[in-house]
Amino acid sequence: MEIKVLKNVLDKNMNQAEQNRQALMKHNVKMVNFISSPGAGKTTLLEKTIPTLQETMNVAVIEGDAFTSKDAERLQQFNIPIVQINTEGTCHLDSSSIESAFAELDLQELDIILTENVGNLICPTAFDLGEDFRIAVLSTTEGDDKPAKYPMLFRQARAVVLNKADLLPYIDFDNETFKKDLQDLNPNLQVFETSSTLGTGLWNWVEWLEVALEKEVKRV
Amino acid sequence: MEIKVLKNVLDKNMNQAEQNRQALMKHNVKMVNFISSPGAGKTTLLEKTIPTLQETMNVAVIEGDAFTSKDAERLQQFNIPIVQINTEGTCHLDSSSIESAFAELDLQELDIILTENVGNLICPTAFDLGEDFRIAVLSTTEGDDKPAKYPMLFRQARAVVLNKADLLPYIDFDNETFKKDLQDLNPNLQVFETSSTLGTGLWNWVEWLEVALEKEVKRV
Repeated sequence: MEIKVLKNVLDKNMNQAEQNRQALMKHNVKMVNFISSPGAGKTTLLEKTIPTLQETMNVAVIEGDAFTSKDAERLQQFNIPIVQINTEGTCHLDSSSIESAFAELDLQELDIILTENVGNLICPTAFDLGEDFRIAVLSTTEGDDKPAKYPMLFRQARAVVLNKADLLPYIDFDNETFKKDLQDLNPNLQVFETSSTLGTGLWNWVEWLEVALEKEVKRV
Repeated sequence: MEIKVLKNVLDKNMNQAEQNRQALMKHNVKMVNFISSPGAGKTTLLEKTIPTLQETMNVAVIEGDAFTSKDAERLQQFNIPIVQINTEGTCHLDSSSIESAFAELDLQELDIILTENVGNLICPTAFDLGEDFRIAVLSTTEGDDKPAKYPMLFRQARAVVLNKADLLPYIDFDNETFKKDLQDLNPNLQVFETSSTLGTGLWNWVEWLEVALEKEVKRV
C-alpha cells in the first residue's frame, strides 16, 4: 500500500509537471532546475550567472528552501522576479509548488526561469518540475566519489558544475576518478570547473548555458 | 490520505525504533547516529574516531549509503564488524533496516555501534533508529548559514562536529553567525571544530564522545 501511494504521488507530480511544461512552451519560457547538496554553491553560482543572462533575457528565479528566505534575499540585488517556496522541511520541490510559483510570475514577460531546488542530492531527482533540463552543482570539497555514490542526479543532468575549484590545492580530489565515474554514468554530460569566488570558469559555463537555452542571444 | 500514510510510515518506524532501543539496552550497547550532507566528512571522522574508541571498547559500524559500499571499504582497516545497508536511492536509514543490521551483529559482544546515515541534511532527521543520540557533522565549506536553513538536525543533535576547519583560511565563514544560530536552535549543543586532515580538534571530540557514551573507559 505504501508503494502504491508513493506511485500515486509521483504520477500526480508527473501530470502537473507536464502541465507546467505546456505553460512554459506556450509562453516560450525555458526553465532550468539546479540541484545539489546543501552548501555546494548554487546561490553563489546564480549570483555569478544572472548578470550575464540579464543582458539579453528576462530572467526570473524560483527559490526552494526547507526554511528561511536567505537565498532569495541574496538575489534581490538583480531586481528580477523571485518567488520563494518554503517546503517546511520537505526535502524537494514538486511540480505543484512550481505551478503556484507560476501564478506569481508573468510568464508572458519572461525568457528564463532558474529554479534552485532544496539542498539535497537524492530527493529532488525523483520530482520532475516541468523544467527543460537539470544542472548538477557539486563542490570540490564534497569529494570525487559523489557521482558514484549519488548516481541519479548525474545520470539525469545536462551538465555538472564542479564548483569551489579554488580549494583544489588544499584537498584530496582525484579529477581522473571524478571524470571517469561521470563518463560511465552519462557520456553526454558537460562538465564545467568553476570558482565563484575567483571568477574562474564562469564564462565557459554561462556561454554554454545560453546556447543550451536555445534562446536567440543578441549581445549588444 | 497521503498524510495519513506518511503518519503510518513514521509510526511504524517509531515502534521498530523502540524495539531496537530495547535490544540495545538489553545488551548494554550504545548507538550513535551520524547525520550530515554528502561529503561533509562523516567517514573520515569515523576513521579518526574509531582507533581511540577501539582501545577500550568493542566497536561496530552500520554504514548507510544510497548505493556503493565505498565508505564501508574505507573502514575495513579497523577489523571491526561493519554492516552495509544500501537504501537503493532512498534518502535515509530507517529503524527496520537497523533491525536487519542487528541480525548480522553479535550485540552481546559489542559496546558501541556507530551508524553513518545516508548523506542528507533533511530526511534522516525524521527517522528514529533507536539510537542513544545524534551527531551532526557539518563541513566549514558548506557555509555558516546551514543551521538556520536546515534547523531540524541541529535542534535534535547532542553535538555538532564542524569539520574541514583547515579550509577556514580560504573561505568566508562567519563563526559568530554560526555559533549564534546554533545557540538559538539548541542551547545545550556541544560544538567541536575539527580537521580530520590535520588531526586538530579530534582529541576533544573523542574524549567528549567517550563520556557521552557513558561507558566505563579504562585506558591502559
